[in-house]
Amino acid sequence: MYKISLITGDGIGPELSESAVSILNRINEKFDLKFEIIKLSAGDKALAETGKALPDETLDAIKQSDACLKAPVGESAADVIVVLRRMLDLYANIRPAKSYPHMPALRDGIDMVIVRENTEDLYTGKEFSLGNSAVALRIISEDASQRIAKYAFETATQRNSMKKVTCVHKSNVMRITDGLFAKACTEVSKNYPNIAFEEMYVDACAMNLIRQPEKFDVIVTTNLFGDILSDESSQVVGGLGMAPAANIGDDFALFEPVHGAAFDIAGKNIANPSSFLLSIKMMLDWLGNKHNDSKCIEVGQKLESTIFDLVKSGVKTKDIGGEMSTSEFTKHITDNI
Amino acid sequence: MYKISLITGDGIGPELSESAVSILNRINEKFDLKFEIIKLSAGDKALAETGKALPDETLDAIKQSDACLKAPVGESAADVIVVLRRMLDLYANIRPAKSYPHMPALRDGIDMVIVRENTEDLYTGKEFSLGNSAVALRIISEDASQRIAKYAFETATQRNSMKKVTCVHKSNVMRITDGLFAKACTEVSKNYPNIAFEEMYVDACAMNLIRQPEKFDVIVTTNLFGDILSDESSQVVGGLGMAPAANIGDDFALFEPVHGAAFDIAGKNIANPSSFLLSIKMMLDWLGNKHNDSKCIEVGQKLESTIFDLVKSGVKTKDIGGEMSTSEFTKHITDNI
Ligand SMILES: CC(C)[C@H](C(=O)O)[C@@H](O)C(=O)O
Ligand SMILES: CC(C)[C@H](C(=O)O)[C@@H](O)C(=O)O
Repeated sequence: MYKISLITGDGIGPELSESAVSILNRINEKFDLKFEIIKLSAGDKALAETGKALPDETLDAIKQSDACLKAPVGESAADVIVVLRRMLDLYANIRPAKSYPHMPALRDGIDMVIVRENTEDLYTGKEFSLGNSAVALRIISEDASQRIAKYAFETATQRNSMKKVTCVHKSNVMRITDGLFAKACTEVSKNYPNIAFEEMYVDACAMNLIRQPEKFDVIVTTNLFGDILSDESSQVVGGLGMAPAANIGDDFALFEPVHGAAFDIAGKNIANPSSFLLSIKMMLDWLGNKHNDSKCIEVGQKLESTIFDLVKSGVKTKDIGGEMSTSEFTKHITDNI
Repeated sequence: MYKISLITGDGIGPELSESAVSILNRINEKFDLKFEIIKLSAGDKALAETGKALPDETLDAIKQSDACLKAPVGESAADVIVVLRRMLDLYANIRPAKSYPHMPALRDGIDMVIVRENTEDLYTGKEFSLGNSAVALRIISEDASQRIAKYAFETATQRNSMKKVTCVHKSNVMRITDGLFAKACTEVSKNYPNIAFEEMYVDACAMNLIRQPEKFDVIVTTNLFGDILSDESSQVVGGLGMAPAANIGDDFALFEPVHGAAFDIAGKNIANPSSFLLSIKMMLDWLGNKHNDSKCIEVGQKLESTIFDLVKSGVKTKDIGGEMSTSEFTKHITDNI
């Protein structure tokens, strides 16, 4: 039995959460697995109701669960997700981007994953006003850099791919901070003689993600560059409709869609739940590996292939050119998994 | 008579500089204009020969010229260009991106310009080692933010376009520094009631540059985001082969291609000089406006249309699918301008 904490979020979050719950319930029924879901509140609504975007009870409940699913959160997103990443030390933010048939990717054969450092850089909130100026501290540590580099090389080792790690930074300008990051990655690369290693400036990477996205395998980078490049890479493979993310620590992990709360389409039952459901696939993988539970991993594969077979056969939501509502699309998945 | 200082650069820099000199000489001959070109050294070669990437004589000569052309510089690029931008207070980095017929843009109808703040942010070199960590200061001032915002709105006012300014930042995470930047832009926007104003997070912008690039007109942003987004936007319209940049201050300006020194193709006479030549077009515009010299502006337009007519008729360099060498392509321009 796995206890799954679920932040239902704002905007389209509640609809996506319903979809997620249906899928997990169906998995409970059909496969010999048991997920207990604990719905939690965090975000704009929580802030309005309790004065805190991330209420203490929510945090406590997350800590007592085996893994967390987080639907998108609205304007207060940073107060929820950045805080959770740091408090739970979820140091690796994993964002795959893959070109699937029948999705409008810029090119075929794209299969990369961005491994984003998730705890430091400009995300530590150390900022100050100084008269008419302001300063933010960009903090990069050797420990965090080595840890994320190691995670990236382990990822490359396990992937069925070209076995390459690209370290993205801007050390020509930020010589000390990104110099340290680049050096840590280079050091770690020496322990992985079978994985190719290259460095790339972030501006060149932003360009190459469009020019030759199929040349990337694993990208490892600092927090803010990872934020920018992963949004870009999801658009390169056809948009945020199919873009999941995992926030992984040594003992705990949180899974979420890359996209936001999309208030403009909230409550209309038209949102694409795939990003969130593919993040459940990532959760099943992570739980399976952690608990040596091959059933979890199998079911995760089943979930992914069900989603992509449906999309391939034309069963899709509006954002990717289909007709299905959120709940219809979800039902197709529960019927076919 | 205009005195033009020319940094000949590294890698493909000298070849591009030859091309630039031919064009300026031809303009001298054919039109009633006079450019005197002063060739200067800066970059890797200067560093090896003099111990300084930016020799004092070079800086002095630049200061005595009417405008500077800078070919790409190699590994020491930051020591040349970042220093020049700050020393000469060239606070606005202007990077247009336009889809031209017969260029492989992601979409037709793209016509935007990125107005990048060019003097502060993480580019001030304020970085420190602290044991196993390092910290860089991200500095944003009200003055610089207002100044660049004003530049962006003036640009939007003058452009023949949809009259919109998009302010790109990450104020949900960097509340104080990017909060200040966003506020400065919002304040300035109030003086331009005929220009639409919107704000966008940098990650969303990286995505939207691919998803709907035709929706952008003028983007105004901080230094590092401008660096990343402008490389991305040049690839969106077909690559760095046709991407010029202007670094503009109140009294002086420097023009350069967005691309780098491309050592892998240096000396082969195959580089595309268009980015650099289009930066000459930007220089002619700037000189024309500054000195009330309509001839300059006309010739600039002629130069741009000559380049694009050639490309349209199939006269192009290898990088964009043609057969021409650098010098052949240059000759076609001098013959047709
Ligand atoms: C909401 C925001 C704070 C967050 C980030 O910048 O990390 C989001 O953009 C993401 O990528 O998960
Ligand atoms: C060479 C480098 C310092 C420079 C920058 O980052 O500004 C370059 O990438 C550019 O965009 O002009």
